[in-house]
Amino acid sequence: MDDILLVYKERPKLRSPVLIEGLPGVGNVGKLAAEHLVDQLKAVKFIEMYSKHFPPQVLMNDSGTIRLVSNEFFYIMRPEAENDIVVLVGDYQGLTPEGQYELSDRILTIAKELGVGMIFTLGGYGLGKMIDKPRVLGAATDEQLVEEMKAVGVTFSKGEPGSGIVGASGLLLGLGALQGMKAVCLMGETSGYFVDPKSAQALLEVLSRKLGFKIDLTELEDRAQQIDAITSKLKESEPAPEPRKEDLGYIG
Amino acid sequence: MDDILLVYKERPKLRSPVLIEGLPGVGNVGKLAAEHLVDQLKAVKFIEMYSKHFPPQVLMNDSGTIRLVSNEFFYIMRPEAENDIVVLVGDYQGLTPEGQYELSDRILTIAKELGVGMIFTLGGYGLGKMIDKPRVLGAATDEQLVEEMKAVGVTFSKGEPGSGIVGASGLLLGLGALQGMKAVCLMGETSGYFVDPKSAQALLEVLSRKLGFKIDLTELEDRAQQIDAITSKLKESEPAPEPRKEDLGYIG
Amino acid sequence: MDDILLVYKERPKLRSPVLIEGLPGVGNVGKLAAEHLVDQLKAVKFIEMYSKHFPPQVLMNDSGTIRLVSNEFFYIMRPEAENDIVVLVGDYQGLTPEGQYELSDRILTIAKELGVGMIFTLGGYGLGKMIDKPRVLGAATDEQLVEEMKAVGVTFSKGEPGSGIVGASGLLLGLGALQGMKAVCLMGETSGYFVDPKSAQALLEVLSRKLGFKIDLTELEDRAQQIDAITSKLKESEPAPEPRKEDLGYIG
Amino acid sequence: MDDILLVYKERPKLRSPVLIEGLPGVGNVGKLAAEHLVDQLKAVKFIEMYSKHFPPQVLMNDSGTIRLVSNEFFYIMRPEAENDIVVLVGDYQGLTPEGQYELSDRILTIAKELGVGMIFTLGGYGLGKMIDKPRVLGAATDEQLVEEMKAVGVTFSKGEPGSGIVGASGLLLGLGALQGMKAVCLMGETSGYFVDPKSAQALLEVLSRKLGFKIDLTELEDRAQQIDAITSKLKESEPAPEPRKEDLGYIG
Repeated sequence: MDDILLVYKERPKLRSPVLIEGLPGVGNVGKLAAEHLVDQLKAVKFIEMYSKHFPPQVLMNDSGTIRLVSNEFFYIMRPEAENDIVVLVGDYQGLTPEGQYELSDRILTIAKELGVGMIFTLGGYGLGKMIDKPRVLGAATDEQLVEEMKAVGVTFSKGEPGSGIVGASGLLLGLGALQGMKAVCLMGETSGYFVDPKSAQALLEVLSRKLGFKIDLTELEDRAQQIDAITSKLKESEPAPEPRKEDLGYIG
Repeated sequence: MDDILLVYKERPKLRSPVLIEGLPGVGNVGKLAAEHLVDQLKAVKFIEMYSKHFPPQVLMNDSGTIRLVSNEFFYIMRPEAENDIVVLVGDYQGLTPEGQYELSDRILTIAKELGVGMIFTLGGYGLGKMIDKPRVLGAATDEQLVEEMKAVGVTFSKGEPGSGIVGASGLLLGLGALQGMKAVCLMGETSGYFVDPKSAQALLEVLSRKLGFKIDLTELEDRAQQIDAITSKLKESEPAPEPRKEDLGYIG
Repeated sequence: MDDILLVYKERPKLRSPVLIEGLPGVGNVGKLAAEHLVDQLKAVKFIEMYSKHFPPQVLMNDSGTIRLVSNEFFYIMRPEAENDIVVLVGDYQGLTPEGQYELSDRILTIAKELGVGMIFTLGGYGLGKMIDKPRVLGAATDEQLVEEMKAVGVTFSKGEPGSGIVGASGLLLGLGALQGMKAVCLMGETSGYFVDPKSAQALLEVLSRKLGFKIDLTELEDRAQQIDAITSKLKESEPAPEPRKEDLGYIG
Repeated sequence: MDDILLVYKERPKLRSPVLIEGLPGVGNVGKLAAEHLVDQLKAVKFIEMYSKHFPPQVLMNDSGTIRLVSNEFFYIMRPEAENDIVVLVGDYQGLTPEGQYELSDRILTIAKELGVGMIFTLGGYGLGKMIDKPRVLGAATDEQLVEEMKAVGVTFSKGEPGSGIVGASGLLLGLGALQGMKAVCLMGETSGYFVDPKSAQALLEVLSRKLGFKIDLTELEDRAQQIDAITSKLKESEPAPEPRKEDLGYIG
């Protein structure tokens, strides 16, 4: 079988689309943000991507049927705005370094076929400590993009993240730059200990400013409050968990 | 050498065959059930499948000769029934995710060449605790099959197994669905601590109802009683083993 | 680069050669025996085999030069006997299951090109306890060979080794049988804790009876006595090492 | 995508170039030395090498832009000397044995295309204890080179390193020898516990003698003094770290 299998459900004509990637990673910040975007902006699934680089696993639907683990592309038509939006979400990232490279390279090929001119990758930046107001850190393929993103509230901090960016959120920039694609990585600060809706919210606020969409964040706020409640109790009852070194890096 | 090597012992003409897969997994439930089926219904081996995705290992026969680890296809002709049966058993599943995908894809190709219209995959569902009357949980490629399987006593429980189904028992459904193959996964509940003949028995009871065969379960019952005897003694003499997280998932 | 690279130093014409394999494994029994054979019978190296499946490593020669890790084929011309002998020794076995299959398959191809009609693979059978008089256990590709090997003192014991034979010593039989090659695996019993010259000696005694050669075993006997001396002291001063489960299997 | 991707920035004409490799390894000795050479001799980058065999990672530039992890070739034109110099530095070595072989083979191909007649690989030789005056140990592809390197102060010590040389610094010699390339590995002694500028200095002193260049070592000396200061304090305050077995080998 092919290493990567694409199933097209539809072949939409998109106007100057941008691609937003949100796959699992630290605090699942990127995945959470991208999935909220799909839900709230009623995005339509049009490509399923299966691969030997994912785990050999199926997931259960509520009806008792199954689906093979995958990454999925959704589109959002926005006649009122400059750019249509493509969102990439999924169950897993590639399991091996080689798989990561193969999948990111394929995502870039798909993006180019769709006419994507700009990529936003979303992730979490694990700090190893609780944080009240997560900043959104950035990384970009060129310096002009750095300035553009600063203008919408993204922080570029020399030497952060110190260990660079691992996974699809990094590779889409790294491989993208080699292929002339413009791309930005947005990293919401997060403890890295919990799924972090507050950090996802911060990412979506930046994106909504940049791309000019409105999005209801109530659901993420509610989940953030629930998690705040849990972690407050944890703080009272037991000492803070010791940050493990491997938790602190950025994977996204 | 080829990644997968097939040795055909015979090329039988089969009537509307169904495929039953039972490879090693949690509690070896699926393997136990499928091997019991092969023994009791006097199934005939007709394909040996060798692969680089299996361990580099030979096993000893009683005569001092060896055989390379493999998966094997058996057939059961049933002129009196609607469907002939093909059974897939084996020493190992693929060692890597990529190997798992390659092998399941090849099994589907073989199934289609044999004219298989329906696949049953067998496995165990590890609960991490002892269980008296194991239920048979199900997962299927479409909702009509869900209903059909409920009718023969299979339980479909929303959110179970929560982590999905890992290995050949899952992939044959996941990849099968993409290729238009109908397939059901039957999972016998099991502690996951022991080889579990009682759970295998439960699987065979469902299959015999569905496919209309009679099978002597005495041997499995005997083995189940032996294991019950052992575990009863263990319970008396020492505290229950602490379930390790990785034991509780489903692999099959 | 190719996965496997062969460098032929010479292309000898061999008369009905047999192949004897002795690569690293449990107690290094097989490697020790095969290297002793090469030394004592003044075997001539004629093929070097390099591979990506070996570690990325060079070893130091005494002169300050290096050599890439490899497997090597030697030949022994025996005009006085029925069969010439090819010996395969080496620094490593393949690191991955796939590498093991690839390398064993290539060794079989080379063997067939050389006209080899019979293969002997050598290894250790780890018992997890000290042993005074190591038996030589056997496994073979067919029952006639089992009888032939019994005749020269090889023990065939039902259910031993219980976990089969892992690595080149097993695969050359398993893959060999599929290709119509006759092959025997000889396993010298060993504790598995130490390099074991006594066990290697036992293998060579069987081989010399079977193939009709004379070989000076003094050096191996000396080394065996040295090791006996060391282990006797260890026994006095500290309790026996606890056998780890993974030490007890057979890899060779 | 290709396993290895080369981006040529320039195609310089080089006069009888030698290649100096310094990739990450024990004490980062080789990398440190090669990077110091690039800085001080104002070497010009002309090839970037990207690969699936490296981690899926981008690193941050100070400007907020990223770069994909890579190996890089620099050149130094030396009209006054016999040989131009090519220097290979990088963020990582290949992650897998297969990756190591693939990358080293490609480096050799590039070297041959550039007309390289001689390769120096740089690494650290981990001793597992602090050392005041690190020697430079050598290994070479032929005995004449051994003599030439002794003449510029390299130590060739029978049986050192006992475990051979692992990684690019070894493979470039091992694969190079098979392809008729002359190559020397220079290993600076180092504790293996710290990045070791003093050992890097020792390597550069040998190279400067051999290749006839002058290089300002002040910066390395300063860093070495800083590290000496730190380790002196550590020695006073706590017992020496227990050498872990895996620290003692040579990877470079």
